[in-house]
Amino acid sequence: MKYSFKNDYSEGAHPRILEALVRSNLEQQNGYGLDDYSLNAEKLIVHQIKNQNSKVHFVSGGTQANLIVISAFLRPHESVVSASSGHIFTNESGAIEATGHKVHGMETLEGKLRPEDVQKVIDLHQNKPHQVKQKMVYISNSTEIGTIYSKRELQELYRFCQDRNLFLFMDGARLGHALTAETNDLTMEDLATYTDAFYLGGTKNGALIGEALVINNENLQEEFGFHLKQKGAMLAKGRIIGIQFQELMKDNLYFDLADHANKQAMKMKKALKDKEVDFLSETFTNQIFPILSQSQIAKLSEKFDFYVWKKMDEEKAAIRLITSWATTDETVDHFIGEIAGI
Amino acid sequence: MKYSFKNDYSEGAHPRILEALVRSNLEQQNGYGLDDYSLNAEKLIVHQIKNQNSKVHFVSGGTQANLIVISAFLRPHESVVSASSGHIFTNESGAIEATGHKVHGMETLEGKLRPEDVQKVIDLHQNKPHQVKQKMVYISNSTEIGTIYSKRELQELYRFCQDRNLFLFMDGARLGHALTAETNDLTMEDLATYTDAFYLGGTKNGALIGEALVINNENLQEEFGFHLKQKGAMLAKGRIIGIQFQELMKDNLYFDLADHANKQAMKMKKALKDKEVDFLSETFTNQIFPILSQSQIAKLSEKFDFYVWKKMDEEKAAIRLITSWATTDETVDHFIGEIAGI
Amino acid sequence: MKYSFKNDYSEGAHPRILEALVRSNLEQQNGYGLDDYSLNAEKLIVHQIKNQNSKVHFVSGGTQANLIVISAFLRPHESVVSASSGHIFTNESGAIEATGHKVHGMETLEGKLRPEDVQKVIDLHQNKPHQVKQKMVYISNSTEIGTIYSKRELQELYRFCQDRNLFLFMDGARLGHALTAETNDLTMEDLATYTDAFYLGGTKNGALIGEALVINNENLQEEFGFHLKQKGAMLAKGRIIGIQFQELMKDNLYFDLADHANKQAMKMKKALKDKEVDFLSETFTNQIFPILSQSQIAKLSEKFDFYVWKKMDEEKAAIRLITSWATTDETVDHFIGEIAGI
Amino acid sequence: MKYSFKNDYSEGAHPRILEALVRSNLEQQNGYGLDDYSLNAEKLIVHQIKNQNSKVHFVSGGTQANLIVISAFLRPHESVVSASSGHIFTNESGAIEATGHKVHGMETLEGKLRPEDVQKVIDLHQNKPHQVKQKMVYISNSTEIGTIYSKRELQELYRFCQDRNLFLFMDGARLGHALTAETNDLTMEDLATYTDAFYLGGTKNGALIGEALVINNENLQEEFGFHLKQKGAMLAKGRIIGIQFQELMKDNLYFDLADHANKQAMKMKKALKDKEVDFLSETFTNQIFPILSQSQIAKLSEKFDFYVWKKMDEEKAAIRLITSWATTDETVDHFIGEIAGI
Repeated sequence: MKYSFKNDYSEGAHPRILEALVRSNLEQQNGYGLDDYSLNAEKLIVHQIKNQNSKVHFVSGGTQANLIVISAFLRPHESVVSASSGHIFTNESGAIEATGHKVHGMETLEGKLRPEDVQKVIDLHQNKPHQVKQKMVYISNSTEIGTIYSKRELQELYRFCQDRNLFLFMDGARLGHALTAETNDLTMEDLATYTDAFYLGGTKNGALIGEALVINNENLQEEFGFHLKQKGAMLAKGRIIGIQFQELMKDNLYFDLADHANKQAMKMKKALKDKEVDFLSETFTNQIFPILSQSQIAKLSEKFDFYVWKKMDEEKAAIRLITSWATTDETVDHFIGEIAGI
Repeated sequence: MKYSFKNDYSEGAHPRILEALVRSNLEQQNGYGLDDYSLNAEKLIVHQIKNQNSKVHFVSGGTQANLIVISAFLRPHESVVSASSGHIFTNESGAIEATGHKVHGMETLEGKLRPEDVQKVIDLHQNKPHQVKQKMVYISNSTEIGTIYSKRELQELYRFCQDRNLFLFMDGARLGHALTAETNDLTMEDLATYTDAFYLGGTKNGALIGEALVINNENLQEEFGFHLKQKGAMLAKGRIIGIQFQELMKDNLYFDLADHANKQAMKMKKALKDKEVDFLSETFTNQIFPILSQSQIAKLSEKFDFYVWKKMDEEKAAIRLITSWATTDETVDHFIGEIAGI
Repeated sequence: MKYSFKNDYSEGAHPRILEALVRSNLEQQNGYGLDDYSLNAEKLIVHQIKNQNSKVHFVSGGTQANLIVISAFLRPHESVVSASSGHIFTNESGAIEATGHKVHGMETLEGKLRPEDVQKVIDLHQNKPHQVKQKMVYISNSTEIGTIYSKRELQELYRFCQDRNLFLFMDGARLGHALTAETNDLTMEDLATYTDAFYLGGTKNGALIGEALVINNENLQEEFGFHLKQKGAMLAKGRIIGIQFQELMKDNLYFDLADHANKQAMKMKKALKDKEVDFLSETFTNQIFPILSQSQIAKLSEKFDFYVWKKMDEEKAAIRLITSWATTDETVDHFIGEIAGI
Repeated sequence: MKYSFKNDYSEGAHPRILEALVRSNLEQQNGYGLDDYSLNAEKLIVHQIKNQNSKVHFVSGGTQANLIVISAFLRPHESVVSASSGHIFTNESGAIEATGHKVHGMETLEGKLRPEDVQKVIDLHQNKPHQVKQKMVYISNSTEIGTIYSKRELQELYRFCQDRNLFLFMDGARLGHALTAETNDLTMEDLATYTDAFYLGGTKNGALIGEALVINNENLQEEFGFHLKQKGAMLAKGRIIGIQFQELMKDNLYFDLADHANKQAMKMKKALKDKEVDFLSETFTNQIFPILSQSQIAKLSEKFDFYVWKKMDEEKAAIRLITSWATTDETVDHFIGEIAGI
């Protein structure tokens, strides 16, 4: 069996999470997110972001989080601006449009939106009311191509949004990996300060399932439960996400798992760089995109599974390698050994 | 801590399910429902219903199953007929309408739809195209009030639907309980024969999460994955539902758990009947609705949690008691002992 | 050619409207409702309702008005309460649900909603957020069966709505006929006082097309143009509705036309009553529902077209007769002559 | 009063249309598009396109036509490809997305889509079912910037669509202008042969209101009336659009009006070219885009109204001049006289 670097959700959950599920299994709890674990997990998150006024809801996946947030926050004539590499623009089978809203996809540098990218969309939509009204900016951190936002970038974008009456929403499917990247200077507190809402991804960071959605803007918190229910996201056994986040938020587990994944990727990156391999982009999270020759790719794929991401020319292509909380030192050493020979 | 008869999803999962999760935890698997467990669980279900042409998809909850099925099967001008007690009509916060479709709610006997109920809706909508077109019949089995469909009832309804070019969809959130009721004469094979689609509920029958949606009508199977994705139902770790249904479908576990829940309810029903308590409806599944006086309710609620379901008069009300796979003999004996004293 | 009493939109427009169209034909005007005629028509309406803060928009038909108002005013989890005879509940092919909102249809007396009808819906939806949230009450005046709201009824309903944080919206497809009924005590000013929004129907009262939507609640006026555009209701030549309402609102034409229609219906009603014919309901607008024997219906239908509305028993049925601004005295005399012989 | 070249819907209707409205005014007709005029207008169109199997529906405007066609033809997970200058992509306030469908906007040459543009979208959406499925191609003829499709271009695009199981839909808001352009080689018959559906715009070619939607693909014709009704497009007095198209389709009026508009634009183009003015694009329909200096624009705008379309540099900008059926020779001569002096 080849080891797969295809994604960070190939395994089940971190053992501590399974243990917590087993330990609590027969305790009777309220349904629909009103269980003790979910309430406690919310407290732990609120404590970390240092914003008592934020509200936390648990949902089962990223597309679900995105479509509920966007359809709950926007009126029918309002749209959302995304990078063209953004998950909502290109990878959710029209989930946002299915709730009635246009997504503007902007070609951007490194998968990140800057104020000038958003301004460009606004400038192109001045013929009101014949053109749709922009009301939200959607960003991913880490992005779909592994890059991260600096504190300054986030601050500038948030200020821009505030000035133009736009909501700023951060997709954090891989937020743990962003916050533990060696180049990161954002804190959990910053997320509560410089976004209207964001989520902490669990599925890609050691949970069986689940994302923790945090709504900071109090105007957007009202009656949110209706939207969860209406979109099929309110689990009868909400407890199973609650208990996982309760465990992840204790003893720094969430960040330790992400940090582990990043470190494994960085070791692989270093080994590749030592071999003078170029990369599609410079990343410091758990996704790396080395550019290899077709023969190198063929050789490597005898031992490992991964996606060929982008053809560069007739000769070369970038591949995507993703590590996770479950990627062992042995696996990484094996990989490093293999690339020595290609 | 009082024992709660409020619902059948107060605990976690049956131990065998947790064991299966632990056992498989570190195996790498494909994402998005293409894991070995999901594929194997599909085979086990297809084997039981004896219909090789049915397709199985796993989703995380009942409202999600309902809204995806209905929005995927209907064109924009088509509507669905439900009992007014139906989950989609009254308990999903407008989930079906949010996908653009009208739900007709019919007052019915025992929460069940008969051909004449559906015909009545059709008769009231003859002014085409000014009135919406009926295209689907939605039923729950067991129903929201614990009753079940007989084989003859299902056959008649399905034939009626076939004659009028309507789809028949069965919400099986508590299908295990229906199929193991002492009065049941439906088989798994019948479900594949007499419905266009149905689902086997896991959440209310011992799983952590998950429902197994079975599409029998081949015309309705095409491109269904897009709808799962678009509505946020395609879990990256689809494996976690797959492995649970793989376990539930082995060694009759799914039916044993439901049978256990039913039997516990029947013991409680018998004890109440022995005390000459009346019931709101005659049920043989894991929901019973005894009618008690206010003082009896007050007394009982000192020891147990449950919902007061319906006020009958100034003096009396029906309560709802739900048992589950996790309701122990001790609990039932305790309950029977308590009602002896009221 | 038989005269048709089937509806009040069988002819074109009142001659004064055609003359106004011809007169203004070659004047260049701004598009999209920003023409002088629309702006002037708005002024005339605002003057009549004595509410300078109301905003007026012109749309091409009633279903369009209803679906835009409801989708613009409600958030995704909010629903609207209607009589079960209400146009939005039963006669718009699912138009409201297609925008994502549930319509509750209540069986009511004479097609009118009273506070207790709405309260009943609210009482049945206390399980939040699992059940949809009621946010709007929709009424028609005159109703789909020709009855009208008294001032007191409207006041009570509006106060009820205010107390429960509900919007009150009046469908006025036949509002002219309501306001000129001999039993009416509502004024145009009352409409601005006791509704959040209403519309003055033109199509059924002598215009070629068009309804004048009046939004009184200032919170609901914001960015309404986007909704008109998005739903395909913003006509490039908005002028053609503007000029019609400019003409209708001058010299009392709108009310004269409705009054004429009512009077013709009342003459026919009197003639039928003189023959001791019973009626399905007592109406004072341009719709009457006499109950006739099958042989009487057959005889009458040799001379006139009309709808058979409701079968009463084996022998008898109620028919619907609608008069309009274009129903002449000769036609009415002819009808009265005919019924003398049946 | 300055003459406006801002658009082709600044006046009312061609006198023959008003005369037809007056002439037919008091004839009683069926409602909702079942009047004699609409039925006759359909026959005239079907005769011209030489396709007895095509069906015709009349709607009140272009955005309405677009949103109904797209939402009626596509299933929820299907998307439509447009030029980024396409009306549905940028000028309908999110109307298509509001019905649940994604619109892909492609940067193209001259506002026209070629097979390779569409293929590029398809190539970017191979990750099924995670990415939305393309099912329709939307084109405008003439385009939003005045260019037209040649017969060969349309044939190639249609064949491409057929090969890839895509619908081809042509927005014909200015179709008359396209078909009468001096460079045009398309016939009415070609439109029925090489599109699945298209519409003949009336609003911008001498009608008060109205577009004639023609559905050629028989699979797409079924139950279309429901969609018209549901989206608020089925006018009670459908007669008023029917009679206009009956008139337009007689004696070549529709094409004479468009031809007139084109000729006036071409005279203005020639005069500008004689002055060595450059153009943003080379057009042969009723829209021209001369590039003028700021001082020339200021001077011209003292005498005429028009839109400044696109800034070219610090010095120059392209303006848009639109002529119509109502643009007189005197006006054109006046314009030519003025530009002589700038």
